[in-house]
Amino acid sequence: MSSIAIRSMGPEGTDVAKLSAYGEARSTVNKNPLTKDELEKSTKYFYASLYLSLGMIYLKQNPLLREPLQTKHLKARLLGHWGSDAGQSFTYIHFNRLIKKYDLDAIFISGPGHGAPAVLSNSYLEGVYSEVYPDKSQDIEGMRRFFRQFSFPGGIGSHATPETPGSMHEGGELGYSISHSFGAVFDNPSLISVTMVGDGEAETGPMATSWHSTKFLNPITDGAVLPVLNLNGYKINNPTVLARIDHEELESLFLGYGWTPYFVEGSDLDSMHQAMASTLEECVLKIRQYQKQARESGKAFRPRWPMIILRAPKGWTGPRKLGPHYLEGFWRAHQVPITDVHTKEESLKTLEKWMKGYEPEKLFDKNGTLVPELRELAPSGDRRMSANPVTNGGRMKQKLHIPDFRDYAFRDVSPGATFAGSMENFATFLRDIAAQNLKSFRVFGPDETQSNKLQKIYEVGKKVWLGSYFKEDEDGGNLALEGRVMEMLSEHTVEGWLEGYVLTGRHGLLNSYEPFVHIIDSMVNQHCKWIEKCLEVEWRGKVSSLNLLLTATVWRQDHNGFTHQDPGFLDVICNKSPDVVRIYLPPDGNCLLSVADHCFRSSNYVNVIVADKQNHLQYLSMEDAVTHCTKGIGIWDWASNDAGEEPDVVLATCGDVPTQESLAATSLLREHLPDLKVRFVNVVDLFRIQAKSFHPHGLDDKEFQAVFTPDKPVIFNFHSYPWLIHRLIHSRASSHNFLVRGYMEKGNINTPLELAIRNNVDRFSIAIDAIDQAPRLGNSASGVRDRLLDQRVKAQNFAYHEGLDIAELTDWRWPY
Amino acid sequence: MSSIAIRSMGPEGTDVAKLSAYGEARSTVNKNPLTKDELEKSTKYFYASLYLSLGMIYLKQNPLLREPLQTKHLKARLLGHWGSDAGQSFTYIHFNRLIKKYDLDAIFISGPGHGAPAVLSNSYLEGVYSEVYPDKSQDIEGMRRFFRQFSFPGGIGSHATPETPGSMHEGGELGYSISHSFGAVFDNPSLISVTMVGDGEAETGPMATSWHSTKFLNPITDGAVLPVLNLNGYKINNPTVLARIDHEELESLFLGYGWTPYFVEGSDLDSMHQAMASTLEECVLKIRQYQKQARESGKAFRPRWPMIILRAPKGWTGPRKLGPHYLEGFWRAHQVPITDVHTKEESLKTLEKWMKGYEPEKLFDKNGTLVPELRELAPSGDRRMSANPVTNGGRMKQKLHIPDFRDYAFRDVSPGATFAGSMENFATFLRDIAAQNLKSFRVFGPDETQSNKLQKIYEVGKKVWLGSYFKEDEDGGNLALEGRVMEMLSEHTVEGWLEGYVLTGRHGLLNSYEPFVHIIDSMVNQHCKWIEKCLEVEWRGKVSSLNLLLTATVWRQDHNGFTHQDPGFLDVICNKSPDVVRIYLPPDGNCLLSVADHCFRSSNYVNVIVADKQNHLQYLSMEDAVTHCTKGIGIWDWASNDAGEEPDVVLATCGDVPTQESLAATSLLREHLPDLKVRFVNVVDLFRIQAKSFHPHGLDDKEFQAVFTPDKPVIFNFHSYPWLIHRLIHSRASSHNFLVRGYMEKGNINTPLELAIRNNVDRFSIAIDAIDQAPRLGNSASGVRDRLLDQRVKAQNFAYHEGLDIAELTDWRWPY
Repeated sequence: MSSIAIRSMGPEGTDVAKLSAYGEARSTVNKNPLTKDELEKSTKYFYASLYLSLGMIYLKQNPLLREPLQTKHLKARLLGHWGSDAGQSFTYIHFNRLIKKYDLDAIFISGPGHGAPAVLSNSYLEGVYSEVYPDKSQDIEGMRRFFRQFSFPGGIGSHATPETPGSMHEGGELGYSISHSFGAVFDNPSLISVTMVGDGEAETGPMATSWHSTKFLNPITDGAVLPVLNLNGYKINNPTVLARIDHEELESLFLGYGWTPYFVEGSDLDSMHQAMASTLEECVLKIRQYQKQARESGKAFRPRWPMIILRAPKGWTGPRKLGPHYLEGFWRAHQVPITDVHTKEESLKTLEKWMKGYEPEKLFDKNGTLVPELRELAPSGDRRMSANPVTNGGRMKQKLHIPDFRDYAFRDVSPGATFAGSMENFATFLRDIAAQNLKSFRVFGPDETQSNKLQKIYEVGKKVWLGSYFKEDEDGGNLALEGRVMEMLSEHTVEGWLEGYVLTGRHGLLNSYEPFVHIIDSMVNQHCKWIEKCLEVEWRGKVSSLNLLLTATVWRQDHNGFTHQDPGFLDVICNKSPDVVRIYLPPDGNCLLSVADHCFRSSNYVNVIVADKQNHLQYLSMEDAVTHCTKGIGIWDWASNDAGEEPDVVLATCGDVPTQESLAATSLLREHLPDLKVRFVNVVDLFRIQAKSFHPHGLDDKEFQAVFTPDKPVIFNFHSYPWLIHRLIHSRASSHNFLVRGYMEKGNINTPLELAIRNNVDRFSIAIDAIDQAPRLGNSASGVRDRLLDQRVKAQNFAYHEGLDIAELTDWRWPY
Repeated sequence: MSSIAIRSMGPEGTDVAKLSAYGEARSTVNKNPLTKDELEKSTKYFYASLYLSLGMIYLKQNPLLREPLQTKHLKARLLGHWGSDAGQSFTYIHFNRLIKKYDLDAIFISGPGHGAPAVLSNSYLEGVYSEVYPDKSQDIEGMRRFFRQFSFPGGIGSHATPETPGSMHEGGELGYSISHSFGAVFDNPSLISVTMVGDGEAETGPMATSWHSTKFLNPITDGAVLPVLNLNGYKINNPTVLARIDHEELESLFLGYGWTPYFVEGSDLDSMHQAMASTLEECVLKIRQYQKQARESGKAFRPRWPMIILRAPKGWTGPRKLGPHYLEGFWRAHQVPITDVHTKEESLKTLEKWMKGYEPEKLFDKNGTLVPELRELAPSGDRRMSANPVTNGGRMKQKLHIPDFRDYAFRDVSPGATFAGSMENFATFLRDIAAQNLKSFRVFGPDETQSNKLQKIYEVGKKVWLGSYFKEDEDGGNLALEGRVMEMLSEHTVEGWLEGYVLTGRHGLLNSYEPFVHIIDSMVNQHCKWIEKCLEVEWRGKVSSLNLLLTATVWRQDHNGFTHQDPGFLDVICNKSPDVVRIYLPPDGNCLLSVADHCFRSSNYVNVIVADKQNHLQYLSMEDAVTHCTKGIGIWDWASNDAGEEPDVVLATCGDVPTQESLAATSLLREHLPDLKVRFVNVVDLFRIQAKSFHPHGLDDKEFQAVFTPDKPVIFNFHSYPWLIHRLIHSRASSHNFLVRGYMEKGNINTPLELAIRNNVDRFSIAIDAIDQAPRLGNSASGVRDRLLDQRVKAQNFAYHEGLDIAELTDWRWPY
């Protein structure tokens, strides 16, 4: 313990030398695998990549600087990031050597922010870029176009966007490179994902916990992730935490995360080449050794997998100083490294000298093509990381075998009277999908799969767990070294895994408590953006949809209280492109099956299914459910009494609890006001109510009117915040006829019925709304209204007094 | 490196004994500070707390079991969580001893999910609960009420909700206990925040990175956080990662995070008491030693602060098994430990025996009051952790000294012609606020303060940094051991710090790129819920508002691309209670000052300010800005030409870029169609457009009509997604007259103007909209329309060709 006493910090403090990114390489492995010739070529190839990186940032003409550099050759607006390019490219190039030597199946994930020049330049150097985009050919004009398009309107961005060959991780929002990589290697036993992690990115929460993913990786059935933490020391304007802690702390941290950290530190090129080449090789050999041991013995275990900490200067190989200011090795190297090249002749000269310092004339032949001796350094064909087909998951998509969902139907459903657990039933379907796709389907969730009543899936695939085992685990722990369920209490990590899994051609489902799916708003947002952009990239195939099952929903979070009541994820989804988002609120078990089947078969969407896990009323036979879900919206004749006539009022519903409550309201109205003509409508596919011009699922205005009438009052009982309905129907001519009820952010510790009452979605409130809105009634129903109000008050009082729902909520059945 | 080779895992693997929570205590510190009498009393006090915890979960009658337990004494619906109660209470009680011994100023943060029984029972035992809620008196009837209210409708929840004395951290959503604690101790040099961290919670991303907060804590000016990681082994249905990794890994992890981990492990009560008492004491002494060293020397440094890993069984002291199933030490102890007490006589007996095993008759006297010898164990007065005034930040709120914002005004503003940086100007105001409140105001952000042009604040308070320093830092690093700016690349951590800071009576601002504030949707959500509930808790004062400044907004993310374009945070905010949320979109610099001043002076809100960081047109003199912002919405006469008449069309705007574009559209219309009467409206306070019945800031219908007319077309140009406007105005009679433009999720690498064009918020599109919508024009303006269309196409083509905005966007000035 004595070694962990106080460290003095501050300017006069720590032994900075130990943290320095400069000088001769210092590394965990010290071999010299490269010949002098290989060393030279490594530097040249590295220079070629760096030259291209700078070219992308600066040039629109004169790509090989064969004329003296003039401002007219520069892009008018300079954009792009230089800081992380060198460290990333350095790693990429050295991994190329190992791919060739060991015939590795590998991909490269670029985590650091705006690090695209590193991967773009390498894709161009290895020829893939020109194969994919023939106009960016391997010659002077191709290179000019390649430069010009970068961070240019109509061109490509500064992250590893969908347009980037070999990318399945854009990195626009930071923190997900490791979880994406693990998702990619699950069930891909031959794959190694070389994952660059930025030290800025490493400060994010999602990244900080995703290092623990090794406890969920099986060395027999899964591939390997080889993280390279690119410790270049700086973010936009700040040092990074991990670059400024003691060496021992840093090493301890990754040992603690369960990895074996290998260090490669310095700036001297030759020794750094040797260090990186030998360290990467050692890591690859370790990975293969662990895999071999597990695969030959048939015994899975958790190795302390290797990872690399690459400490090299930010903006490595750039000028150390520009005037009085540090550039290389400081945060000023983050973005465009020299900004005043348009206006300052000296700066333009500095840039030219710098770029020429890479000696492009030795790297590219007179046509502008990489010289043959360097071209050989890259692997060939699909072994090139930017050509690995796994990163184009849509083209690699495995067929999902789905049993007939009709076989799982609730049978003999008596509408509104049958009472059963939709989610438990759905779990059987899910189990059998998993059984038929044991290598390409997984279920993800943050420790809630059992709570969400999906545990039947454990019959074919338990929860993957490579941590230690205790004897208690035999008592229903449902853990296994190999399984189909992935659970960690990090919505970020499980979402990242699922995204990585889907983007590499497989299939899955994430289940979450509804309130806490907000934790991944931002991740789902980014995934939507990724798949939307992919639609514009013609060489990308459509990946399977990201299926999100939101359960433990707001209306049954009465007992967990206010913090657990938030159905607002749907609002976030509705802001995304209509080309990629779908929302379903199946009212009962057969509809849930039908909707889920549809979602599993779909491609390139984010499908959100909202369905409660508790027992619920069932309404539709399987046949009716299929019809209903196919239409996505429908009038339930059996619950309506307006047959052949105009209704007095429309009771519309969307969501399981609202459907039940409005049906009960219908029953109250029929009992007390039998002459009132009520039409009962249910919406499964939320976007049906939006205008067709806004969403492809939208009804046209005629269809909308046929369901909701042009002029009758509509009491719309909605699962989520009511405003979302107003937003979706704003352009409908009859929108002012809608009174929408939903969660109004009113809750605490409640009973389900009392929570409903507080937000006016309960049967009494809905019936009262109908009475108030139905124009024909006038004051004639005021007695009934008073009785209903009285019942509502009694129900609330009962809850406060007894802490139980009165029988209505769970025992009520449709009596007709 | 040999010690970190493969570990075999799996059932036959790891040395489980080293990870066991059972048996004699094993601890880092092995002293025996407690006398036999103290030991006995510690156990009794612990039992009293556990008895109360079970009572809360089960009983509504017969609180002290003085009658044989019958089902009628039980709550009808059993709710509550037992799993983490013992570990938390154990810690609480042992810290009480140290508070008394050293007169410590301490609070207790309860991180584990649903762990309220532990803190509620301790608050009750130390008398605070009865002082705050006299009907929950320290006698039999008070105890009965105390039990009954727990997880009961109309009562209190299972987290440390706002109703809980001593709580400033609810813990409904997991992951924020450490960041909240750090926020609480910043600028609170005497305070120690004892922070229980659940090992489930520890898997979350926000928690995983928040351990690094020590790099931002100054031992001279700030207090200390003492984390106790409650390693009870299980989440809801799963083991936890940290409980199932090797001891060395676990120790390494926390050494790596920069802490000194002390272990206390076992289940045997006497030895665990000694271990916990001595270990906590050692930690407190270490904290005081570090603080003394720093404070006496005047030299701040980063100690490796102590933290405790408490490994004790989940559901500790409960039955080890229930029938064939494990309870204590397994996940089955998570929630209600025995669930079938209503229906199974044997289970009822087991519960009774268990509860009586705590010997309540020895703990509480005949009135039901804790016996005097145990009451002495708790501290007194405000030293009781549940009475510490700092947790009721509203009552402790420090006065914020704010200079007159008018002194920072842009002067001689020529409307629509003055061009200046609103954000840079605001930074001066911010700097002077910081200067006047050096102990109670901080600015938080994820590495973007400088990028967001707020760096002027460094003149009075630099960025706090307790990591190592390099010589480069002198080159504009703006780092300091003590400062006012808190930057870490974790939106979660900086938001958690700010929340903790504000909730303990101080003030602050978080600045973020607009797109990535979605990362903390969920945290802000939870903060809204907290402050809303606080309004219902009469003894809580109002804390200062959580001020969020969203900049680097969607319209200037043209160059960073699609991943950086998301203005949807406002939708999340709009779903929260109107009592606590406010949204402002100041169109220019003087409005920004006025709005910010208002936000800093306000209480108990989440204020969201959206304002771009780039240079922008200025519109209003300070006097006009104050008037405009006070009204929150207004007709800009100088930009309108409908004086004294009905306009043909209303151009409404909200947000800086939309305001500029619609103003330019107005100018185009005036140039080409001088007879067209245009009314120009600007909205600063977004909720003004919502109906008064939905939000207190809402205009009444008459006011709304007076601004927007009852029947004229309104082209509403909005900063964010257009749907939000439709949602807010849905109940307005004239809502169908609104054509709303905004971000339509269309973007890539663009120029600002081209991005605007793609989403139809640009000057040409808006002018065309006006022509299309103005009923009076008919086809008469078709020539103008064609010309505008042509200009729009040319602007786009220019962008694709030159990569620059044509002069319009940045050079355009209002010519009238």
